[in-house]
Amino acid sequence: MSQFLPTAPYRGTRDFLPAEMSVRTQVFERLYEVIERYGYQRYDGPILEPVEIYEAKSSREIVEQQLYTLTDRGDRRLALRPEMTPSVARIIAGNAGRLQFPVRWYSHPNCHRYERPQRGRVREHWQVNVDVFGSDSAACEIEFFELIHDLMAAVGATPDMWVLRVNDRVLLDAMLTGVVGIAPDAVRDVAGLVDRWEKYPADKLAEDAAAIGLTDKQFDRLGEVLTGGRAVLDEIPAEVRERSKLVQVMDSAAGELVRFDPLIVRGFDYYTSTVFEVFDNHPDNRRSLFGGGRYDNLVGLYSAQRIPGFGFGMGDVTLFDFLGTHSLLSEPRAEIDAVVIATEAELADPARTVAKGLRGAGVRTSTPLDIRKLGKEIQRADRSGARVVVIVGGNDWAAGTVTVRDLRTGDQHQVTPADVPARVRDLLELGPGTA
Amino acid sequence: MSQFLPTAPYRGTRDFLPAEMSVRTQVFERLYEVIERYGYQRYDGPILEPVEIYEAKSSREIVEQQLYTLTDRGDRRLALRPEMTPSVARIIAGNAGRLQFPVRWYSHPNCHRYERPQRGRVREHWQVNVDVFGSDSAACEIEFFELIHDLMAAVGATPDMWVLRVNDRVLLDAMLTGVVGIAPDAVRDVAGLVDRWEKYPADKLAEDAAAIGLTDKQFDRLGEVLTGGRAVLDEIPAEVRERSKLVQVMDSAAGELVRFDPLIVRGFDYYTSTVFEVFDNHPDNRRSLFGGGRYDNLVGLYSAQRIPGFGFGMGDVTLFDFLGTHSLLSEPRAEIDAVVIATEAELADPARTVAKGLRGAGVRTSTPLDIRKLGKEIQRADRSGARVVVIVGGNDWAAGTVTVRDLRTGDQHQVTPADVPARVRDLLELGPGTA
Repeated sequence: MSQFLPTAPYRGTRDFLPAEMSVRTQVFERLYEVIERYGYQRYDGPILEPVEIYEAKSSREIVEQQLYTLTDRGDRRLALRPEMTPSVARIIAGNAGRLQFPVRWYSHPNCHRYERPQRGRVREHWQVNVDVFGSDSAACEIEFFELIHDLMAAVGATPDMWVLRVNDRVLLDAMLTGVVGIAPDAVRDVAGLVDRWEKYPADKLAEDAAAIGLTDKQFDRLGEVLTGGRAVLDEIPAEVRERSKLVQVMDSAAGELVRFDPLIVRGFDYYTSTVFEVFDNHPDNRRSLFGGGRYDNLVGLYSAQRIPGFGFGMGDVTLFDFLGTHSLLSEPRAEIDAVVIATEAELADPARTVAKGLRGAGVRTSTPLDIRKLGKEIQRADRSGARVVVIVGGNDWAAGTVTVRDLRTGDQHQVTPADVPARVRDLLELGPGTA
Repeated sequence: MSQFLPTAPYRGTRDFLPAEMSVRTQVFERLYEVIERYGYQRYDGPILEPVEIYEAKSSREIVEQQLYTLTDRGDRRLALRPEMTPSVARIIAGNAGRLQFPVRWYSHPNCHRYERPQRGRVREHWQVNVDVFGSDSAACEIEFFELIHDLMAAVGATPDMWVLRVNDRVLLDAMLTGVVGIAPDAVRDVAGLVDRWEKYPADKLAEDAAAIGLTDKQFDRLGEVLTGGRAVLDEIPAEVRERSKLVQVMDSAAGELVRFDPLIVRGFDYYTSTVFEVFDNHPDNRRSLFGGGRYDNLVGLYSAQRIPGFGFGMGDVTLFDFLGTHSLLSEPRAEIDAVVIATEAELADPARTVAKGLRGAGVRTSTPLDIRKLGKEIQRADRSGARVVVIVGGNDWAAGTVTVRDLRTGDQHQVTPADVPARVRDLLELGPGTA
């Protein structure tokens, strides 16, 4: 055994070094900006939550297999949140009296699930959550579908790259019972089968269908319904269809934003009607990027007040897989804009003063911590992406000037310390004035 | 028992509603900006870490009493990170081969400690961490002291509100052994006593001192040394004093940034020489806001390569207590800039189109999800902080216009939908052009 502790992060979790973090930050800031333009406000909550809030209405898979749990010194059973929706429902219920509904909120929490690490799956991920509370209107659906189109455009995705597949669990229930002829008490199991439809081979699906009591005829009919698109809606009673907000949306101008798809179920127990998933169209990455839906009864676990919810959670892992697959990841930002180099230890104080002036003008500026050969120090500055070096040297300094060198062109000029910020901003194309 | 689940967050953790989150975001973005201007780059790491990385060189109190631990399904012993320094040392060691030292990094992780919740202490806090790795130069000390002054100025604090107290553990050891006459094997216990000096009453300190073997005379001498400021340095051998980076800094122009104070120890075992703490000067909040220091051997737990570190962690709880005490907290941002209201359901589509145009121009814009009375809707917009409402109404719309109303003045104008973005940007004083 090594005398040293291992340096790898815990299995399924990730270290984000600055180059990667810079790319992530750029992407998430674009998402935040779009979300805020729709009037959503950021909130946050704790990563530790009572286990009970997941046991009540989450998914069996998460609670039984994927929850990280611990017991604190006060014997409270806690979980690392596996998702944000139960937390936000709790917070909304606890503060309902002082909120003006509808409430539009977003967050960007880290969430944990004990999964087997593989492409698209890790144990700690960062998930942008966007939710609206307190409206039953189909305008929620439309707002979210528009928002998703804007979010995808903001990260550089064109509409051919992805598709927004939508369904309504109430319609699905009507399809399963009314059209396929499934007994009401088998609907939940069959919905689970539908959720696995695209992931499992046909023989495995047939086997599972038989195990939950479907006849061969029902299984065949189920396959037709699930892959037949909108046609099945005509076989559903008009009063069920007309109550569906999703049908209202599909019949409006916003219908072009989505594709109706009976295969969309979503794994969480709390969804009550509209459900949706954004899928990657790329042949190398045909999978769900993120999804959400309407959950009318989740806040009801905490409060007698009826507060319907609608929202989605967009995880970073699948999003960045998508961006990578489509070559949409931008370059990391340069480490630094300018480096101020003193040629000798005695000039370290003046160099720091020059650096201070640059920082005050909004220029990201470092000074070397140790005195090295000037040539080496300029090379280091260049490698770290600096556009400019400012050299504070003996004779120049005595004459009241420093050297500003443009590392892209090699041009250099003597300027007075007071003129350095304006000159450097000019080279960085930052425009005049302080930041 | 209630039929409902409790809505309070887990004891010692916090929900951040949008108004509070907005204030936090403003403060932290100012901090990030200052830190980035010094050339620090953001990184991130997992919240779950192997327990071993804390057992090696953290603080006994944290490991024995404050760590949240769990065992995963693969029998790995994990902890919710109580602080970031062991994680960043691990990451630096694991990536040292591809880094150009010195490395300047910062992060903003959530950290957990099982503490008894009280003023300034919670169980989950958010901590801005700033570290430099790979330099032994006293220029690290100077850079951090300057950075701290800039950070405090950025959140609105004037120099009279706080003080940066500094010490050097090597000097402290020399004071304790050489000046007070304490046996080398008792130094660690006495350092613990020094750390408690300002928190405990005199009789409790005397009792503790006796328990660890100090004579009355040593205890009295210790008290003189700890409260006597810089004078004690003259009693320390010149070769020890001259090796101290802190003494070099205090003898330079940067000396004015700090106050030498033998009482500063810091609780972590990994600090090796310079240690510092920022203290609030306000009589209602005399306490440490944050601190840090030099840790030359922590990366050495992971790697044979010697990589000294220097850094600090600034927790949100003490920072916001400070800002609140000094009335430095800014107002939350308005929820929204503009609200586009359709007077009847049939005009919802045109209203959404107008909203889309505003969002494209960088204006945070919402549309009501349900149709209510116009007067009520305008009141709601006003309450949510909107400056402008745009009314899409029947006759106007038929005539090709909408109404733009300034909620501050009550002025309103008919404009064509195409002119709405420019008109609204004008009212919001955002200047011409799109964002």
